[in-house]
Amino acid sequence: MLILGLDPSLTCTGWGVVRSVGSRLTHIAHGQVPTDAGTPMAARLHHLHDAIAAVIGTYAPDRAAVEEVFVNKNPASTLKLAQARGAVLAACGRCSLPVAEHATRLVKKAVVGTGRAEKAQVQAMLKILLPGVKVTGADAADALAVAIAHAHLGGGG
Amino acid sequence: MLILGLDPSLTCTGWGVVRSVGSRLTHIAHGQVPTDAGTPMAARLHHLHDAIAAVIGTYAPDRAAVEEVFVNKNPASTLKLAQARGAVLAACGRCSLPVAEHATRLVKKAVVGTGRAEKAQVQAMLKILLPGVKVTGADAADALAVAIAHAHLGGGG
Repeated sequence: MLILGLDPSLTCTGWGVVRSVGSRLTHIAHGQVPTDAGTPMAARLHHLHDAIAAVIGTYAPDRAAVEEVFVNKNPASTLKLAQARGAVLAACGRCSLPVAEHATRLVKKAVVGTGRAEKAQVQAMLKILLPGVKVTGADAADALAVAIAHAHLGGGG
Repeated sequence: MLILGLDPSLTCTGWGVVRSVGSRLTHIAHGQVPTDAGTPMAARLHHLHDAIAAVIGTYAPDRAAVEEVFVNKNPASTLKLAQARGAVLAACGRCSLPVAEHATRLVKKAVVGTGRAEKAQVQAMLKILLPGVKVTGADAADALAVAIAHAHLGGGG
């Protein structure tokens, strides 16, 4: 099964595709979609939507996985994040791609073994779980982590 | 100038198109896009995105107008609203439609004369401002209100 992990964010949305066969994971691709802070919100959201739809079109994943939204203490940040998430999830809907949501704590636990892992620990584990892969960018790393977690959590079906 | 007012919501997104020429307003069309609560979030967001893109394609408005997001005390409600808003604004971005945001208070003030107007007052004023129009649905009414407010606020250019 091909799993597309997504880490939506208005500034830069990360994505990562892994193949999961039994307990074996293979890295397929990953990337980041930055948006230009100088362009209008609607244009940025459209860019995210279309870029993720293009990724789905290219890799034809069987399933997408995202972290559940973290409600930030800063309402403006939460709104930006949720709007980006809406544009990205709409792209999944466009491609009839089922989307699974996993709590951040469970993603960290699945990848590192503890729900309180730091970002650096998650990224270090990615190097072990996906040997030989040089992950470019923290957002892509987070997206690969949620894809791997989805495979491990067995919500894979 | 043709103005598309939008009232994004996951459950039902309202839209309304008015023509503004000088101080004269004409109703062109309005409608609501409900989504099926029994379908996955991504599919609902895609439906909103495509339906609003179709409205834009049909009426070719010059400008869209939305209310600024009201940060609900219920974080789950705010997230749903913001995700719907993201999908709807991405549709505006797809069509290169500029989007203006107006504070709810200013919309009410522009339409009714006071920023503390009740919904019923706004709907009553719509009947006066757009004579002969029978507005079907509270979400479409809210969308028409923000379109009218945009015309009145002179952000019309």
